[in-house]
Amino acid sequence: MSSASTSTDVIRDLGARARVASHELALATRATKDAALHAMAQALLDHEPAILAANAEDVARAEAGGTPANVVDRLRLTPDRLADMAQGLRDVAGLADPVGEVVRGSTLANGLELRQVRVPFGVVGMIYEARPNVTVDAAGICLKSGNAVLLRGSSSASSSNLALVGVLRAAITAAGLPADAVQAVPADSHDTTKALMRARGLVDVLIPRGGAGLIATVVEESTVPVIETGVGNCHVYVDVAADPARALPIVLNAKTQRTSVCNAAESLLVHRGLTDTLLPVLVSALQEAGVTVHGDPTVAALPGVVPATEEDHATEYLSMDISVAVVDDVDGAIAHIRRYSSGHTEAILTEDLATARRFTAAVDSAAVVVNASTRFTDGGEFGFGAEIGISTQKLHARGPMGLPEMTSTKFVVTGDGHVR
Amino acid sequence: MSSASTSTDVIRDLGARARVASHELALATRATKDAALHAMAQALLDHEPAILAANAEDVARAEAGGTPANVVDRLRLTPDRLADMAQGLRDVAGLADPVGEVVRGSTLANGLELRQVRVPFGVVGMIYEARPNVTVDAAGICLKSGNAVLLRGSSSASSSNLALVGVLRAAITAAGLPADAVQAVPADSHDTTKALMRARGLVDVLIPRGGAGLIATVVEESTVPVIETGVGNCHVYVDVAADPARALPIVLNAKTQRTSVCNAAESLLVHRGLTDTLLPVLVSALQEAGVTVHGDPTVAALPGVVPATEEDHATEYLSMDISVAVVDDVDGAIAHIRRYSSGHTEAILTEDLATARRFTAAVDSAAVVVNASTRFTDGGEFGFGAEIGISTQKLHARGPMGLPEMTSTKFVVTGDGHVR
Repeated sequence: MSSASTSTDVIRDLGARARVASHELALATRATKDAALHAMAQALLDHEPAILAANAEDVARAEAGGTPANVVDRLRLTPDRLADMAQGLRDVAGLADPVGEVVRGSTLANGLELRQVRVPFGVVGMIYEARPNVTVDAAGICLKSGNAVLLRGSSSASSSNLALVGVLRAAITAAGLPADAVQAVPADSHDTTKALMRARGLVDVLIPRGGAGLIATVVEESTVPVIETGVGNCHVYVDVAADPARALPIVLNAKTQRTSVCNAAESLLVHRGLTDTLLPVLVSALQEAGVTVHGDPTVAALPGVVPATEEDHATEYLSMDISVAVVDDVDGAIAHIRRYSSGHTEAILTEDLATARRFTAAVDSAAVVVNASTRFTDGGEFGFGAEIGISTQKLHARGPMGLPEMTSTKFVVTGDGHVR
Repeated sequence: MSSASTSTDVIRDLGARARVASHELALATRATKDAALHAMAQALLDHEPAILAANAEDVARAEAGGTPANVVDRLRLTPDRLADMAQGLRDVAGLADPVGEVVRGSTLANGLELRQVRVPFGVVGMIYEARPNVTVDAAGICLKSGNAVLLRGSSSASSSNLALVGVLRAAITAAGLPADAVQAVPADSHDTTKALMRARGLVDVLIPRGGAGLIATVVEESTVPVIETGVGNCHVYVDVAADPARALPIVLNAKTQRTSVCNAAESLLVHRGLTDTLLPVLVSALQEAGVTVHGDPTVAALPGVVPATEEDHATEYLSMDISVAVVDDVDGAIAHIRRYSSGHTEAILTEDLATARRFTAAVDSAAVVVNASTRFTDGGEFGFGAEIGISTQKLHARGPMGLPEMTSTKFVVTGDGHVR
């Protein structure tokens, strides 16, 4: 038996168990699910030594293998981080249950009663990189939204993930829900990822979380419906009518407050009318903050600016780099964004109402921001309370995905003998 | 240059034109779009002779090729059918514009104003069979929802479709909107369909309308996000607590009122307690109505029943056939439905409240119906006013898809200098 067919069998088995669990989860009350979430949180704290020991194995292996320090940092668990993960589960318990919410309802002309009700997807597949916190976040959000989840984390985090999933499953069982609500997919081979992506019918939705390469692979290979998340080449456009006193802090915040996240600014567009005034101020402030500025020919005339390539304008740096281009006006900014944006978040800084209206109407991204930092596109900031990721696709969910976005709906139609 | 690469070029060109048109459509007011819809309707009537002549070519070719009569009937246009199509466009004009609807909104703790607003998808691809009315329906629904559409109809309807699209484009132009809002994809080769399915980035959503084979192909091959529509192996479960006087008309209506549609019943489940009472009544009534009954071993003991194969229970007949099985109770019905259903519509006939609640909670289909015919799962019946299809998938839209389901959303965030 080839490795690929073994992996298919593994996924078929996991998927079948998840399906059975999903039937029970779909009918679980909020009280039961919340009790399980609190039990999961407590179990993480109770098993801290074992979890940290498993994580230490992953970290040691990563360090021995020469993994970059920032990646090792994401992989590393500490008592504080574990406590944060536990608190995250308790926070999810505090959120409203999306399942059963009546989205719309009416009585039809013939007396039929129509209700559209939120229901879980069923079985969710998560594919993600070496961040053990995603294991716990996804388990909690999926359980609360009534979905069974198959977790395919990175092989470099597999000791951590197996320890976490083991602890969570025991807590779920103790709380009276099926352990197979949360299952780890073996991470020993890429074949399991491939099998997961081909598990149409077994898995209802696949959510990749990670870099652009991972997401592109899943989108290309998967026959299971995918929700794309989190690639952000976010733009800030500084209009000629921007308030200079507001523009500088917003540009700095969007680029430098945290560079490794998808809602950080990667591209700055400046109105041509500001070429000799605000543009040099912005560029030198960015440079003083430690940012490398990749500029178009106009911008590259300024000191210390690296000439930008075509590629630079399309790049999500996730680092202290930014591409800067001068545009003729708001329509020039819109055209540039249409060409290069990944559709995550674009901001305009302007005090002119018509310009702001034009920008918000014409820019088609998950979030369009006026006079604020791109960094606000976030489930927590938006008040959604928990976030499984930020969708950059147009189907189903767009922008930060909270609990309601982890559900489908069904129509319940009640009559008393109605025929057509 | 191979035919495949030619097709890719054709789709790239059509897609680029559609994208440009979509930018204009997204900003068009309802008044402009409604005027265009009325102009399109009038143009269909004004050009009736040319459209019917083009259609006659398709019909003659189909008849000469031995196409089955029911398929030729769907292909055929008449003055009445053209008038219905025109009225359909006027009806769409009368519906609310989904674009710009604020789905939710709030002011965040820090004063940021958050609005989630409906926006068009952008470019929609339709792949469908030899039904020229879909050309007009899809053009109208897409235009009203601000989407440009690429129409890939059947080659056997290509004369009709080209005539219709030509007339519609001229009317759209005259109404001041871009003609490329509606474009026909050449139907001379399957390569254009393949290229359309691979046009990720050019096409935002692909909607196949047709039989199970077409939909399965699109789902399997497409890298563009797909909304599955319309395959229905719909079940009616007659519970032991069903009102016999209601059960008979509902079963007959669900099966026989119109057999070629996705919401017709294909499978009947009967509680074991009715084996000697209602079951024979239902079976003989179906047989008297001209239905061939494919029964499980218990049912096959009745006169004239054909023994059902495993395959029968999974089949969407779309004809005067039905599979019938006896189940122990509501949980037996739920288990049978989970195994065989396509997730479209399932009905329960019962006067027992707890049984109805159990069925509606546990059955996970686009529509779950109590004491009424499956035939009500329909955009028109649900009061949505227009329907692009009935989604049987769980992402984005499930059940009848009206205008709001033809949109995405974006978040518009307004601040006054907010940074994190």
